[in-house]
Amino acid sequence: MNDDAFKKRGVDYPVVMGERTLPGRYYHSQEIYEEELEKIFYRFWIYACRAEEIPEAGDYKVIEVGDESIILVRDKTGNIRALFNVCSHRGTQLCIKPAGNFKSKTIQCAYHAWTYTLEGKLIGAPLMKEGPGFKKADCTLPMAHVHNWEGFVFISLAEDPLPFEVQMEALMGKFKDWRMDELRIAHHIEYELNCNWKLILQNYQECYHCPGVHPLLSELTPFQSARHDYSKGAVIGGYMDITKERGSMTMDGEAAGPPVCNVSGDDLQRVYYYSLFPNMLLTPHPDFVMFHHIVPRGPGSISNNCYWLFHPDVIEDKKAQDRIKSAVDFWDLTNRQDWQVCEQMQVGTRSKRFGRGYYSSQEDILIALDKEVLKALGHELPE
Amino acid sequence: MNDDAFKKRGVDYPVVMGERTLPGRYYHSQEIYEEELEKIFYRFWIYACRAEEIPEAGDYKVIEVGDESIILVRDKTGNIRALFNVCSHRGTQLCIKPAGNFKSKTIQCAYHAWTYTLEGKLIGAPLMKEGPGFKKADCTLPMAHVHNWEGFVFISLAEDPLPFEVQMEALMGKFKDWRMDELRIAHHIEYELNCNWKLILQNYQECYHCPGVHPLLSELTPFQSARHDYSKGAVIGGYMDITKERGSMTMDGEAAGPPVCNVSGDDLQRVYYYSLFPNMLLTPHPDFVMFHHIVPRGPGSISNNCYWLFHPDVIEDKKAQDRIKSAVDFWDLTNRQDWQVCEQMQVGTRSKRFGRGYYSSQEDILIALDKEVLKALGHELPE
Amino acid sequence: MNDDAFKKRGVDYPVVMGERTLPGRYYHSQEIYEEELEKIFYRFWIYACRAEEIPEAGDYKVIEVGDESIILVRDKTGNIRALFNVCSHRGTQLCIKPAGNFKSKTIQCAYHAWTYTLEGKLIGAPLMKEGPGFKKADCTLPMAHVHNWEGFVFISLAEDPLPFEVQMEALMGKFKDWRMDELRIAHHIEYELNCNWKLILQNYQECYHCPGVHPLLSELTPFQSARHDYSKGAVIGGYMDITKERGSMTMDGEAAGPPVCNVSGDDLQRVYYYSLFPNMLLTPHPDFVMFHHIVPRGPGSISNNCYWLFHPDVIEDKKAQDRIKSAVDFWDLTNRQDWQVCEQMQVGTRSKRFGRGYYSSQEDILIALDKEVLKALGHELPE
Repeated sequence: MNDDAFKKRGVDYPVVMGERTLPGRYYHSQEIYEEELEKIFYRFWIYACRAEEIPEAGDYKVIEVGDESIILVRDKTGNIRALFNVCSHRGTQLCIKPAGNFKSKTIQCAYHAWTYTLEGKLIGAPLMKEGPGFKKADCTLPMAHVHNWEGFVFISLAEDPLPFEVQMEALMGKFKDWRMDELRIAHHIEYELNCNWKLILQNYQECYHCPGVHPLLSELTPFQSARHDYSKGAVIGGYMDITKERGSMTMDGEAAGPPVCNVSGDDLQRVYYYSLFPNMLLTPHPDFVMFHHIVPRGPGSISNNCYWLFHPDVIEDKKAQDRIKSAVDFWDLTNRQDWQVCEQMQVGTRSKRFGRGYYSSQEDILIALDKEVLKALGHELPE
Repeated sequence: MNDDAFKKRGVDYPVVMGERTLPGRYYHSQEIYEEELEKIFYRFWIYACRAEEIPEAGDYKVIEVGDESIILVRDKTGNIRALFNVCSHRGTQLCIKPAGNFKSKTIQCAYHAWTYTLEGKLIGAPLMKEGPGFKKADCTLPMAHVHNWEGFVFISLAEDPLPFEVQMEALMGKFKDWRMDELRIAHHIEYELNCNWKLILQNYQECYHCPGVHPLLSELTPFQSARHDYSKGAVIGGYMDITKERGSMTMDGEAAGPPVCNVSGDDLQRVYYYSLFPNMLLTPHPDFVMFHHIVPRGPGSISNNCYWLFHPDVIEDKKAQDRIKSAVDFWDLTNRQDWQVCEQMQVGTRSKRFGRGYYSSQEDILIALDKEVLKALGHELPE
Repeated sequence: MNDDAFKKRGVDYPVVMGERTLPGRYYHSQEIYEEELEKIFYRFWIYACRAEEIPEAGDYKVIEVGDESIILVRDKTGNIRALFNVCSHRGTQLCIKPAGNFKSKTIQCAYHAWTYTLEGKLIGAPLMKEGPGFKKADCTLPMAHVHNWEGFVFISLAEDPLPFEVQMEALMGKFKDWRMDELRIAHHIEYELNCNWKLILQNYQECYHCPGVHPLLSELTPFQSARHDYSKGAVIGGYMDITKERGSMTMDGEAAGPPVCNVSGDDLQRVYYYSLFPNMLLTPHPDFVMFHHIVPRGPGSISNNCYWLFHPDVIEDKKAQDRIKSAVDFWDLTNRQDWQVCEQMQVGTRSKRFGRGYYSSQEDILIALDKEVLKALGHELPE
């Protein structure tokens, strides 16, 4: 691709003066990574699972957050709990399967048969009498806070987290027309990537790379159409215009289904990009919702789980399967194009001779993102 | 399994007040692991091999202890030597095969042909004249101390170890009736496990987990029958009753052979469990002896070598092979049940929210074990 | 092999008094390894590639040096450039293929299409206007210094390296008769080895190990014939006599081809061994040139690339292929013998009980080599 690909679109912003990228060590240092776990992933609200994945009492899904393993479980009253996956007795991991159903409506440790309710209360500790030093009531499983927003289950491992509505202010009253809690997972792909988690967020928040990296995407949604409609702290949102009438992000640019629920008006020609710092990327289309769940595994590796949500009517419609596939294929292609450059950036930033480049004005959101990371870590960089 | 499995056995000990487990970092920290090598594995008497594995002059077996590699070799006078597997010249590893025979009755370095006797004395250094700064007598291979107890070869890498009889006081005069030096290895299985070495010792020293984890074992030897008959420092022993008359630990609960040598009286209905801290677990049955040799590979990984010793008459008896197999199969099954929960405990204890649980009275030996580790390391834990 | 193999050659030097090997940690410590990268590999002139590998404008080869990746590229004027493989914008790695040709005669970053000339000058940064804080002229790719000696391309990552002629004084005016810039790569083997880079240099600089390790080599070139003809700092050279008239280092000891270019006189019966510290070993024979390019990957692992250079006439001669193969086979055999003992030395030197051995007089060059390493690192060892 040559410069003309940009120039003919007639855009040429002035550079954001003096704003530079993070130093390379922010993508490679084990120490900084562990600080990020402590100060970001163990504190902020983070995406955990879809409520639909654990519909019945006893249904559970296990997720990993740094060194922690969390059981998301539906209790008998229908509430979702987030229990630390570790027995209070000797520290044994309770659940080893990634998902399932606790048929007995209790959680029993495989080692010494300590037994907990679905709410995490210890109700059985064979052979152990209560007395000073041991009370069952003191052995309730540690729990994370839970918030269900439109079928997306968020958790916070902090003792006392910010209110969800404060951290995720950008979402309040947003996307109501999609009625996302009614949507269901039509497809899921898990990608194992060799890059830092922040590179995925950075990549998601600028379309400066689109003309070169994503020819098909750029055809469907011109990168100059990108607009922000929200930016506060680390939660940043925007949209791009879908050129084709009643089009969408699919291999042929045609919609993958009818508009979702009550989506109407301008939203019929837009794809939204909302970055729910630190571990979720939400991408509502007129006809479906795509989202990513980023699971950091180390400074230079992540699992990135991509989900496609459709209305149940579409999922159940045999004739619609090709259209769903077209949406999946489009984003799978686009994802892989992104992973390639993110992994190249991961490798390149190891160089001691990379001296913090200058951001273009197209990348102004990344400056906000970097600042949010630095603020959370309590770091200050020299000019 | 539900609580009834415990309750119907009618046992309900009061809890040991105030005694808590080790913090999770004792199973995960690289630093603590290296300290354990230094202060435990490089100092204590540790199990190395069976004397029968190197019966003839020149026979050798190589074992790993942390960063050290040791050659156990039978010298010309029939003594067993424990030589460090490292040439005094440039530090080259002398033996690369795990076992063999030095046909020349000398050990020659592959690099520059320096040659040592089986006693570790340098007798050949081609092209090098003795003189100030180089004397062959100064280049004898470093050696570990060796002690043969009933055919089990123990070594100590310490310059000046405690007398074997002091560290292993529990063994003195014990198990004479088995005449274990006459027994031979009938079978061997090596397990590679993802857990800390201490979890294996802990697992071995309590039967609180038996009803849930080992249904078959619990049938053959009720867990309430467990008794200690020795406990001093880290060497801890006990036994359990074999319910069936002339039974043993086999798939069908029948003995795998006649009583070993002079075993008689109560010992005919008992299985003993002796934990020879830090790296051996000795389990004499009336009809055979099973033992484990634990080789730590890192904070979270070990090799665990399980051996079955039988009397040579049984090993040579074609008709007895099925019975040997039944003993091997029983313990292989039981081992794998244990490895599963040990590995789950390894994973779970990574959690920062695991805050040191309370031991049950069934696990009182583990308190002694933990204390021995802390004492060896010179660590004190806050209450 | 017994001592007689040495003795019958009638050589028995007195030991070099008091000179001892490096402590084992110099082969295992991650910290020392990183210091070596910093103070040796990122500062000294190091071998990078053969000029013939990138003959045309736009041809490139990528090499790794510690954390750095360097693009060796032929520019439009025929000069070879050594550009850091990292975009000045966000730090993305520019080239991911190990070699190729920039058809456009520009280097374009895959991420945001920043474009550089083959000289590293930024000529395209789409959508970015120059202004305070961003000037294209400030975004030229970092470059390493380049020196072409007889077709061997050396680079230095230092800002201000020693003159090539000072570091490589040993080479000045040496080996002119081979006209090595006219030679071409006939064969290449890459070996992945589990040993420290210094062990390969040490191994190359003494033939004390030859009688035992290399029976065939010792037959062709008696180890007693080894002579130094240069030794200053870390660049050390010498030669050995080829016994057979018009012989060479091949499987049958016969020359692999006619003498290279102008080689004549004594050089017809010699094989030279020049150690171009830190990463190249140059071995000119009368009829071909063999060399090694050592790429450190960590304290205990390297890639070792072995090349065989022949005159183009020989390479193009169908009938000569068997002879080339004989030279390749000889050195492949000899290499593997060396790798085996180097890897054994790597393992053995982990032992805490290896207490720095004494060098023999046959290994006096290794003393110089160790001292050069210590000097570069600024380390002093206790006596």
